[in-house]
Amino acid sequence: MNKARIDRFVSALRSASLPQMLVVDPMSIYYLTGYYNAPFERFFALYVSETRFTLILNRLFPAPADREIECVWYSDTDSVPDLLATLLRRDQALGVDKDLRAKFLLPMIERRLAASFADSSWVLDELRGCKDAEEQALMREASRINDEAMLRFRALIHEGVTEKEVADQTLAIYQELGAEGFSFSPLIAFGPNAADPHHSPDDTPLREGDCVLFDVGCVKNGYCSDMTRTYFYKSVSPEHRRVYGLVRAANEAAIREIRPGREIHILDDTARGLIAEGGFVREFNHRLGHFIGLSEHEAGDVSAVNTALLRPGMVFSIEPGIYLEGDVGVRIEDLVLVTEDGCEVLNRVSKELEILG
Amino acid sequence: MNKARIDRFVSALRSASLPQMLVVDPMSIYYLTGYYNAPFERFFALYVSETRFTLILNRLFPAPADREIECVWYSDTDSVPDLLATLLRRDQALGVDKDLRAKFLLPMIERRLAASFADSSWVLDELRGCKDAEEQALMREASRINDEAMLRFRALIHEGVTEKEVADQTLAIYQELGAEGFSFSPLIAFGPNAADPHHSPDDTPLREGDCVLFDVGCVKNGYCSDMTRTYFYKSVSPEHRRVYGLVRAANEAAIREIRPGREIHILDDTARGLIAEGGFVREFNHRLGHFIGLSEHEAGDVSAVNTALLRPGMVFSIEPGIYLEGDVGVRIEDLVLVTEDGCEVLNRVSKELEILG
Repeated sequence: MNKARIDRFVSALRSASLPQMLVVDPMSIYYLTGYYNAPFERFFALYVSETRFTLILNRLFPAPADREIECVWYSDTDSVPDLLATLLRRDQALGVDKDLRAKFLLPMIERRLAASFADSSWVLDELRGCKDAEEQALMREASRINDEAMLRFRALIHEGVTEKEVADQTLAIYQELGAEGFSFSPLIAFGPNAADPHHSPDDTPLREGDCVLFDVGCVKNGYCSDMTRTYFYKSVSPEHRRVYGLVRAANEAAIREIRPGREIHILDDTARGLIAEGGFVREFNHRLGHFIGLSEHEAGDVSAVNTALLRPGMVFSIEPGIYLEGDVGVRIEDLVLVTEDGCEVLNRVSKELEILG
Repeated sequence: MNKARIDRFVSALRSASLPQMLVVDPMSIYYLTGYYNAPFERFFALYVSETRFTLILNRLFPAPADREIECVWYSDTDSVPDLLATLLRRDQALGVDKDLRAKFLLPMIERRLAASFADSSWVLDELRGCKDAEEQALMREASRINDEAMLRFRALIHEGVTEKEVADQTLAIYQELGAEGFSFSPLIAFGPNAADPHHSPDDTPLREGDCVLFDVGCVKNGYCSDMTRTYFYKSVSPEHRRVYGLVRAANEAAIREIRPGREIHILDDTARGLIAEGGFVREFNHRLGHFIGLSEHEAGDVSAVNTALLRPGMVFSIEPGIYLEGDVGVRIEDLVLVTEDGCEVLNRVSKELEILG
């Protein structure tokens, strides 16, 4: 159990006037308890109220090593709503996790197991959104490995190599560098493929003049990294050079805007405005970034509609891109950690335009 | 679009007096439409009513190749409940998928976007539970590859090899045999590790007298296989031989009980009774099996509490086991397809006790 995080969570519940909450996101449960379990179709929850802090576990799940955690066990042949009826306070409002499934939520509502039901994930999302010192160190380490890995991935590039041949070597490189695995399936795209948002590495061979886009990340000690670099192979056209320059400028301008107290959408506005001045509007067709930590995509986005304020400890991606269908895709992505007076960029791999080969 | 499946689904909705349903399980959507998409945190649904059959898609999702499917698109900056308000019939009951998340369900309930809300997944689960001819052929093929793979995995066994060294070679073997990948992370356990339900392949080296448990499966054309075989290395003790014989007898006795019209729990009762007669009760600590198809675990279990009737086309696992802590674990698992007058066992790998090495 992480007492400091639990204390912050309990006092956030109190501030939100929430007397009880049912947490089901396994990563949120891990964040608070240090216990990780992948429940698949079975019910797995942490119930928190003024008087209880209780894990609800199927007998097939492993027992938590930490004996201080109160556990309530059930079997596949038990009824989950019956069990919840013995735990929940029917006369009080209940906050539920945004991920709680209809299979479990609808019977709870039907049986009136609480006075009201509300999606209260934001309480935990706000806590998880600001990484504490231990998490900041883990995020730095995951990105340090990702930086080293990017340099090795670049070295796999040669005439005629296919995207899939490169992608197939990435897991072993991450593992050699001490990572547990991917934080997401690596995206490696050559030439026009880099403009297709749904592309997966395939048998496309590398050709002179192609862009070479790597969007890759690993997990180390449970924490995720995520970085994109775009290179060119053997030569680069003047127009591609201009596109690269715009994307790099957008990445760097957005990063310069980061400091506590500013509204998050300013970062997206800055990057998008700069790319629009260069003539590209629909060609930058996604939000500027997403929060990241124990999960590769955490609650919170860096987009035009997020009016929340930047706070120290937030970690998110800054990943502007320009995609010209049938021609080229350029994206440059770093993870950043908001500090007391600005930000720390967690990725150190150069953003200079580089021509490989 | 799969017209036959859609027709069966629409008439099942009518029989259930459900005028409208919101399907969110990506595999159910694929089953009906042929369109697959992994939405992660974004909303992705199929809305079906007497008059509509509409996919609800985020603009970042790929467009369906099948132009006949009606699509409604939204952006990250749009409100999903607002969009649903334009589609749903407020004056009618709505069936929802068991996987619909609180994040989307609670606002729908709060805004009264339908007259009532019920978990109606069972309508689709019953359809998906009985594989049609095309699916039966795909299930056979996935298990045929798994049979071939098992023989190759066995051949990797030698003195001192570790579980992880064997596990690390399995993906390449599946891919060589034409599979897309794992249906689940392979479980390879030596000796006492096979008695631990939460074991993952580690650096344990193989020793004489160890059991060698392989619980493995692959995906081929979207359909899953899943099989377990337990071997012994160099020698087997009389007690381990007796345990193996009981598990094999339980597997075969349960399979002999399969025919349409019987209650599913009879299979579990048969296997469990036979193992109990041999003196093991708590040592067989899980249900006898699970349904399988597009997902590795589908709705429906082969357990003591399932009183549903066996029907032709059902595919599930029969996987009795005996686990002696610190000593040995034996499980023998086949996939079976219920036929008009019995069943077809999809796995052909021998269940004779075999001593490797």
